[in-house]
Amino acid sequence: MKIEYVPIGTIHTEFIRTEDAPIQGVFAEEAGGKVEIFSEYASGLKDIESFSHVILIYHCHLAKGYSLISRPFLDDKDRGIFSIRHFKRPNPIGLSIVKLERVVGNILEISEVDIINGTPLLDIKPFIPLFDNRIKANNGWVGSPGIDMERGEAGRHRDE
Amino acid sequence: MKIEYVPIGTIHTEFIRTEDAPIQGVFAEEAGGKVEIFSEYASGLKDIESFSHVILIYHCHLAKGYSLISRPFLDDKDRGIFSIRHFKRPNPIGLSIVKLERVVGNILEISEVDIINGTPLLDIKPFIPLFDNRIKANNGWVGSPGIDMERGEAGRHRDE
Repeated sequence: MKIEYVPIGTIHTEFIRTEDAPIQGVFAEEAGGKVEIFSEYASGLKDIESFSHVILIYHCHLAKGYSLISRPFLDDKDRGIFSIRHFKRPNPIGLSIVKLERVVGNILEISEVDIINGTPLLDIKPFIPLFDNRIKANNGWVGSPGIDMERGEAGRHRDE
Repeated sequence: MKIEYVPIGTIHTEFIRTEDAPIQGVFAEEAGGKVEIFSEYASGLKDIESFSHVILIYHCHLAKGYSLISRPFLDDKDRGIFSIRHFKRPNPIGLSIVKLERVVGNILEISEVDIINGTPLLDIKPFIPLFDNRIKANNGWVGSPGIDMERGEAGRHRDE
């Protein structure tokens, strides 16, 4: 069984290479970008300006193959791919929660962005705190004392 | 440009029809299910048991076509499809944050589930509060006083 999707837009950012991009948007308040929605889908943006944050789902087009065990950018231990957010996944689907600054026609101006320039967009969903925050969730291995969160704040992806 | 993905597993729940499923997992603490990962991908589950919640990304296989303007299950006003979580999207990608109860081999036992039985799984990502909670985000139109959140708690999807 194969599942086929089509890009509904393109994400434009200042991050040209994998190793330029922040590790997570939450570490990159200043990082801006624009989401261009192709005109045939633009009417689906109605009401989106009422949200402060949106979830972008996109195709990690630079990923070359996948690896079921991989090394996260925040740690030096190998982890299962479903336990990390690395892009070398069986289906290279990326997910970012970004801040929605402004909507101008078919363009969303965003910040807190960790996405490579030219990334094909698959879907946009509103981020709804009532549905999406999990205050009591734990951080799994990311919460262990050995993890250097400063690496997240200063860090970039590796080239791979 | 077409993007091709393959199922990496199947989500098993008690919700057979669209109109049986809760509107959001956050309204359905009791709703359990099992995520079966196909054996060729099972080694990617390493370390996932360290997380209390995971993000499931899946193909809404029962969606028939899409509608750029649609009516959410929580309100009686039409909204842009990218402002609601309805499954009739240009790319029918579903996203659920579920509670991870237990990992047994290639099976994740989960709760807080709003997914239809037999749904093809595309990806699993760890839910990481440090990355994914947005405490100051607003609820957009969902937060307006006219929205009846009790409809969410009692509600089910419509058949469409």
